[in-house]
Amino acid sequence: MRHHPALLNQKKRDGGELSDDEIDDLVKGVVDGSLGDGQLGAFLMAVCCRGMNPRETARLTLAMRDSGVVLDLRALPGRKVDKHSTGGVGDKVSLCLAPLVAACGVSVPMISGRGLGHTGGTIDKLAAIPGYRTALEPDEMVAVLRDCGFVMAGASASVAPADRRMYSMRDVSGTVESVPLITASILSKKLAEGIDGLVMDVKCGRAAFMKDHAAARALAAGLVRVGVAAGIDVTALVTDMDRPLGRAIGNHVEVLAAVQVLKGQGPDDLRELTLALGVEMLRLAGERDVGAAHARLLRAIDDGSAVTALRHNVERQGGDPRFVDDAKALGRAPVHLGVASPRDGFLADLDPLALGLCAMDLGAGRRQPQDRIDPHVGILLLAQRGERVTRGQPLAMVMAQSGSAAEAMLPRVLAATRIGDEAPPPRPLVIERIATAGA
Amino acid sequence: MRHHPALLNQKKRDGGELSDDEIDDLVKGVVDGSLGDGQLGAFLMAVCCRGMNPRETARLTLAMRDSGVVLDLRALPGRKVDKHSTGGVGDKVSLCLAPLVAACGVSVPMISGRGLGHTGGTIDKLAAIPGYRTALEPDEMVAVLRDCGFVMAGASASVAPADRRMYSMRDVSGTVESVPLITASILSKKLAEGIDGLVMDVKCGRAAFMKDHAAARALAAGLVRVGVAAGIDVTALVTDMDRPLGRAIGNHVEVLAAVQVLKGQGPDDLRELTLALGVEMLRLAGERDVGAAHARLLRAIDDGSAVTALRHNVERQGGDPRFVDDAKALGRAPVHLGVASPRDGFLADLDPLALGLCAMDLGAGRRQPQDRIDPHVGILLLAQRGERVTRGQPLAMVMAQSGSAAEAMLPRVLAATRIGDEAPPPRPLVIERIATAGA
Repeated sequence: MRHHPALLNQKKRDGGELSDDEIDDLVKGVVDGSLGDGQLGAFLMAVCCRGMNPRETARLTLAMRDSGVVLDLRALPGRKVDKHSTGGVGDKVSLCLAPLVAACGVSVPMISGRGLGHTGGTIDKLAAIPGYRTALEPDEMVAVLRDCGFVMAGASASVAPADRRMYSMRDVSGTVESVPLITASILSKKLAEGIDGLVMDVKCGRAAFMKDHAAARALAAGLVRVGVAAGIDVTALVTDMDRPLGRAIGNHVEVLAAVQVLKGQGPDDLRELTLALGVEMLRLAGERDVGAAHARLLRAIDDGSAVTALRHNVERQGGDPRFVDDAKALGRAPVHLGVASPRDGFLADLDPLALGLCAMDLGAGRRQPQDRIDPHVGILLLAQRGERVTRGQPLAMVMAQSGSAAEAMLPRVLAATRIGDEAPPPRPLVIERIATAGA
Repeated sequence: MRHHPALLNQKKRDGGELSDDEIDDLVKGVVDGSLGDGQLGAFLMAVCCRGMNPRETARLTLAMRDSGVVLDLRALPGRKVDKHSTGGVGDKVSLCLAPLVAACGVSVPMISGRGLGHTGGTIDKLAAIPGYRTALEPDEMVAVLRDCGFVMAGASASVAPADRRMYSMRDVSGTVESVPLITASILSKKLAEGIDGLVMDVKCGRAAFMKDHAAARALAAGLVRVGVAAGIDVTALVTDMDRPLGRAIGNHVEVLAAVQVLKGQGPDDLRELTLALGVEMLRLAGERDVGAAHARLLRAIDDGSAVTALRHNVERQGGDPRFVDDAKALGRAPVHLGVASPRDGFLADLDPLALGLCAMDLGAGRRQPQDRIDPHVGILLLAQRGERVTRGQPLAMVMAQSGSAAEAMLPRVLAATRIGDEAPPPRPLVIERIATAGA
């Protein structure tokens, strides 16, 4: 590094702005190791405490993007658009959205992450499909994208290596919660996909990273602003994560739920969010008419082209596509145990954080990064928020590897539900839309 | 560690207070390495940004003290008192103060540091005395203290090891400037001496760590408050470091200047500060009458007991005491070159920071921690601030190992002086006194 890390840290600590050159130098130090762990931890904490303005955040984002490989998609026609979610429980939208939008003729280069804690990860869900490969090198990603219209891959070590080191340091040092750092982490990896537009699903609620609307709005607005500063269009939807999305929580059941949406079925909320995000993706790809965008998506479902796009992609990435037409092809957990409603009433609440942690502890998610995932375990919700239920009616199904594991989970799942005397007020799924000016 | 470092860091980051138990656990992690470098850097930065209240700072201080050996001086009679300075240019007070106060019957167990940058360190000055050993183990320190009434030693690895790791991390990570961290660093090592009272010389001005009175007062008040919370009495004097202290800057010449003070000679400011700090040390040892304290110090100088105490200690710690009576015994630099006043007028300013850096670059101090020190080089000031000077009159003497080194330094030393048309307003040397209530 050309600047002394201590001086850069002092500047940020004292509320100063870092120059473009200083930020570039810091990220260089992150990658080549000349910025030590202690210096990096102190820098990240200084940013948590003092913030970064949009220019600093945009420069940090670009420097992190340029620390690794950036896909060159200029040879492919049209605008390339992706979607990213800040993470929730039951969020399998990517699995249906990518083939759906690709079936509408828009290229979707999707690099996804693994799940941690109560939130699932797209890469983990894809691992429930036998043979499906998500470890693709950049060249192969471009080839799959050309062949299928979309590609779904994990972040290889060559993509934004600066983010890799910063992210793991943030995780252990208590420096995760920072809008500029979250923004730069998300956008650096997304910009490395070579995209022109990005739709952000910023979750908001108990099971989301952002617990309240104000925090979610701040992150959404920052993502839009910094995306523009970094040269792409960003549209952010703030969506409800105070309930699980859809009915399936667990990897193989979420894959199946996504297939249902592509076939015009699936739960209402999952279908609604998929279409809302899909409309935004088509708009970013150039569709000016919202109604026309909506119609294109419905047509791709109705004419089977969306489900065909998925089948084609699964084969191309080495997976066995039989599950698309035969749910049993993915296998199932040996034990299924129902959770019965303790009384008559209305299903007033499903706590998404508690349910996500139940699924994690069944083996559907990771408590620690090195934990192994079981694709077959999880929870199926059999009643929806607001629904009238009667005593003894099954509210949920626990899918486990053993009777004891399932039984041990029953009281926890029950505790995550609340039966009230009246129907709870309806909650909007899409809370707010924030977009680049003019979009 | 029983607590997750990330959670403790988050708590501090978000402005929370750490419990005693959490602070103890953090310091345990510092020492046993279960707190990683990145986690430590982030913690230190969080404290820089969010601060610590007096209870947290006191607990941190005690936990850092208890990370290593604490001298047990209960077998020695009377109260044990020490002095510590935040560091300045020309500050050789410790060298005369410890024998002077010991000659008044008060035990002074003094653990000192090495210098870095423009400030000198007592251990470096003592190294100018042939044979003098400052690397003493705790047992030997107690024995010397018993025999001589005072002991001067460097901090061994067994004293406050938590501070050792935290201090070097602060240095590289831009987390030095924090009143709670500075306070805990100073007091943890001083408390490990087993003292009952501490006089703090908090320097204030261009060559001090604290540049202005408000910052110095804040540190002084924090040291007094936290000292009390940690179980000792602390008196702090805020003193002027906008000028060099005394006339000598360099190691062997500072040792000689200290001897002069013990013989009733030496420059006025050095003598004044030594007596002011000595009075406070005697008060902390139980002397209630300020006038009587002053008289005891003057008597120890006049009757030769102070200089005898120094001679006795030097022999006891393996040094050659001839320099006490024969300045030439310490040797001298081969080249002495005078800096002449460019015109008639008054010596309006001596920039202590610039002069400290000149001495450092001559070899009297360290730019990097691993730099070696030359005991013989430095700068002797031949005129004092406010003195009338005439063109050509020597203002200072540069002592160097070669003619070229001395000549190269002349313009820098000259640039550090300013000749004005009028006498500058006088500056008080002792700016403020802050003491434990009732002291």
